Amino acid sequence: MATVKCSIPKGTRDFLPIEMARRNYIFDTIRSVFRTFAFEPIETPSLENLSTLMGKYGEEGDKLLFKVLNSGDFMEGVDFQQDYHKVAPRICDRGLRYDLTVPFARFVVQHRDQITFPFRRYQLQPVWRADRPQKGRYREFYQCDADMIGSTSLLNELELVQMIDMVFSRLGINVVVKINNRKVLAGIADMIGAPDKLVDITVAIDKLDKIGLDNVRAELAERGLTSSQIRALDPVFSLSGTAEEKIAALEAMFANVEVGRKGAEELKELFGYITAAGVKCEVELDLTLARGLNYYTGAIFEVKAKDVQIGSICGGGRYDNLTGIFGMPDVSGVGISFGADRIYDVLTELDAFPADLAQAAQVLFINFGPAEQAACVKAAARLRAEGIATLVYPEAAKMKKQMEYANRKQVPFVAFIGETELKDGTVTLKNMIDGNQTTMTIDELIAVLG
Amino acid sequence: MATVKCSIPKGTRDFLPIEMARRNYIFDTIRSVFRTFAFEPIETPSLENLSTLMGKYGEEGDKLLFKVLNSGDFMEGVDFQQDYHKVAPRICDRGLRYDLTVPFARFVVQHRDQITFPFRRYQLQPVWRADRPQKGRYREFYQCDADMIGSTSLLNELELVQMIDMVFSRLGINVVVKINNRKVLAGIADMIGAPDKLVDITVAIDKLDKIGLDNVRAELAERGLTSSQIRALDPVFSLSGTAEEKIAALEAMFANVEVGRKGAEELKELFGYITAAGVKCEVELDLTLARGLNYYTGAIFEVKAKDVQIGSICGGGRYDNLTGIFGMPDVSGVGISFGADRIYDVLTELDAFPADLAQAAQVLFINFGPAEQAACVKAAARLRAEGIATLVYPEAAKMKKQMEYANRKQVPFVAFIGETELKDGTVTLKNMIDGNQTTMTIDELIAVLG
Repeated sequence: MATVKCSIPKGTRDFLPIEMARRNYIFDTIRSVFRTFAFEPIETPSLENLSTLMGKYGEEGDKLLFKVLNSGDFMEGVDFQQDYHKVAPRICDRGLRYDLTVPFARFVVQHRDQITFPFRRYQLQPVWRADRPQKGRYREFYQCDADMIGSTSLLNELELVQMIDMVFSRLGINVVVKINNRKVLAGIADMIGAPDKLVDITVAIDKLDKIGLDNVRAELAERGLTSSQIRALDPVFSLSGTAEEKIAALEAMFANVEVGRKGAEELKELFGYITAAGVKCEVELDLTLARGLNYYTGAIFEVKAKDVQIGSICGGGRYDNLTGIFGMPDVSGVGISFGADRIYDVLTELDAFPADLAQAAQVLFINFGPAEQAACVKAAARLRAEGIATLVYPEAAKMKKQMEYANRKQVPFVAFIGETELKDGTVTLKNMIDGNQTTMTIDELIAVLG
Repeated sequence: MATVKCSIPKGTRDFLPIEMARRNYIFDTIRSVFRTFAFEPIETPSLENLSTLMGKYGEEGDKLLFKVLNSGDFMEGVDFQQDYHKVAPRICDRGLRYDLTVPFARFVVQHRDQITFPFRRYQLQPVWRADRPQKGRYREFYQCDADMIGSTSLLNELELVQMIDMVFSRLGINVVVKINNRKVLAGIADMIGAPDKLVDITVAIDKLDKIGLDNVRAELAERGLTSSQIRALDPVFSLSGTAEEKIAALEAMFANVEVGRKGAEELKELFGYITAAGVKCEVELDLTLARGLNYYTGAIFEVKAKDVQIGSICGGGRYDNLTGIFGMPDVSGVGISFGADRIYDVLTELDAFPADLAQAAQVLFINFGPAEQAACVKAAARLRAEGIATLVYPEAAKMKKQMEYANRKQVPFVAFIGETELKDGTVTLKNMIDGNQTTMTIDELIAVLG
């Protein structure tokens, strides 16, 4: 076989052990919180029928789906004068998972008879997008989603906020959870007599922080709002104070706007729960938060790291009809998704990963030759039976080489069974950090390392 | 959006929570043993360049690779009069991972400067094959591989056997580990003067159990061996007794066959290690074991369940030049791969999964209304902070409905905070198995469930 150049596709990554250890630290923390809140794991296949995926992520999404070639004689009857996007469906009918939400909706509908509702599921799996690769944007990346489906209770929203609080407190990241409600945004559009301009209004409001009020007003005018409609938005821009004060203002503002009033009520109930439950992280009612308007219908969430300049590290919201596209209407759900790659970047910048993640082995037995090796193998078997990660150097190599190996592998302890130890049935343990050496029995060794 | 039919591609699977719990039990057991032997995790991308994958798995493998369509105008300059297999490479240059071994070899070569050898890596990731789906054969399935690379010591082989022993002993599966050596098979072919017939000989010998000696001889004749060559194989067929006895016979047989003698020596050393180390499961020298001859060069392993009729549930071997195809010759390695799907089937047939795997929550708080709910939320927060998986029923639904939910979810304890408990600051805990009820403080509740 000819030698081939070693590379991987653009936008994909290999993960070395140290990166895996750090990623697993994040995944394990998230997973453990999901389990504490009694979420159950599911997995869906990487390959879905294109009919399941197409049209669910907008026109741009359809283009960014990775499509997998059919096996066999797919070309029969295909008119190749047509362009790529028309031909593609003829030569492939499977695509790679694009997110975890649409497959979850498909899963719920397909397995409705095997599921007890309300159903809480979590899912940690890779997704693929044929996006242009760039810094921090990959073509294959993991999503970590938790959704509760089959209950409209706002206790669910509270628990998502509690989970966010617990995950980031355990990871040592200071965060602010921003909350808004889709019904409040709809209420604002209704209030100024522009229900059809909901998207334009939210896109413009979303930029308030960046471009300032005057520019937002200019953009709203460009987007076809009349000057009286823009003036009618003034109370929205001038909202300030605590969540309770903002909600009180919204209630007054929406006296005659039903959907808005409902949104304000939901926010009031949720913030009441949050205060009573003693959520530790900062939680803010942010009326400029718009995110993923296409399927969200109630609460929306976004989490920002307070000490690192980066996009949102977690987000989600309530959707009232996600399963409807698969023929099962009126099943409300709410969920969040943690952005593992950005959380990785935040922990790196904060230097907040635990220091001992790199340790693959707790102890390395130095190999002095056949007889000593046999004693090491026996001692190692006893340590491993106790769950202690143990290495025996596989050859009687030069001492220097074996010690260098221990250093490179960052093994905290090295164990010697030489002539004396062999005779006495002992082992000499060297602490690689302070250099101290102690001779002991194997039982004592297990007690020290266990 | 139109309603679409809910299905997944042929040969793929959804995993429900109970299946996930059982699969994770298997994966966690394997992963924990890998870690105890100081193997480090890596991951490689699901998408590899086709140049990395093509030609590594034989002609059949090339056909079974899932190929991913290029984005963009891939059809320019393509002659569509050619057949599928010639066109495919023009319209796609990425494929889905087919196994974990070739990507690992690519990984080792690509990251050689970041790796300390000997390097022990484990990898648990899905692979994809466009195989015809059938019972027990899927188009997407997980592989669980551990390999040590950069050391020729047979201690590595011993440790793989110890790992197999530990994994199956923890899972409660009685196994026999069958061991052979590729050099012994080469020695046999050399000995009878048919080194070019190695594959034919091993394929025929492999059938000894099933078709009997006479039929094996007939097949060898069909495959072009002379009758004197077939007679010369008699000593191989008549080998019996313990591993030590078989090895002694091989040593005699290979007095003048160098490669065979080397194989017998390796087996002698390895079986010596296995005996000294006190491996608990049955280990057998099986000269009819042939498996994956293409890249194995030394020891080969296969594990069979003793109490269930099924193919091998683990296998592996030593390869001396796997990285050579990527331009890094002479790096010897040895590895094993656990077959999670078959292990799942064995545990199902033995009814050997732990009984409590299905429990998502340890306790469900019954919801009696706003005031009681607030107390439940507070108590649940305390339990969750202690890592106790806890549910609060999200609405004050009818008692019967909430209890039914607890039953369906197999929650072992239900907690009530009613009027009395609310007043007293207590909780009444009902054991769902024996029906016993006890009233206690939240501190006591944590002690009971923690």
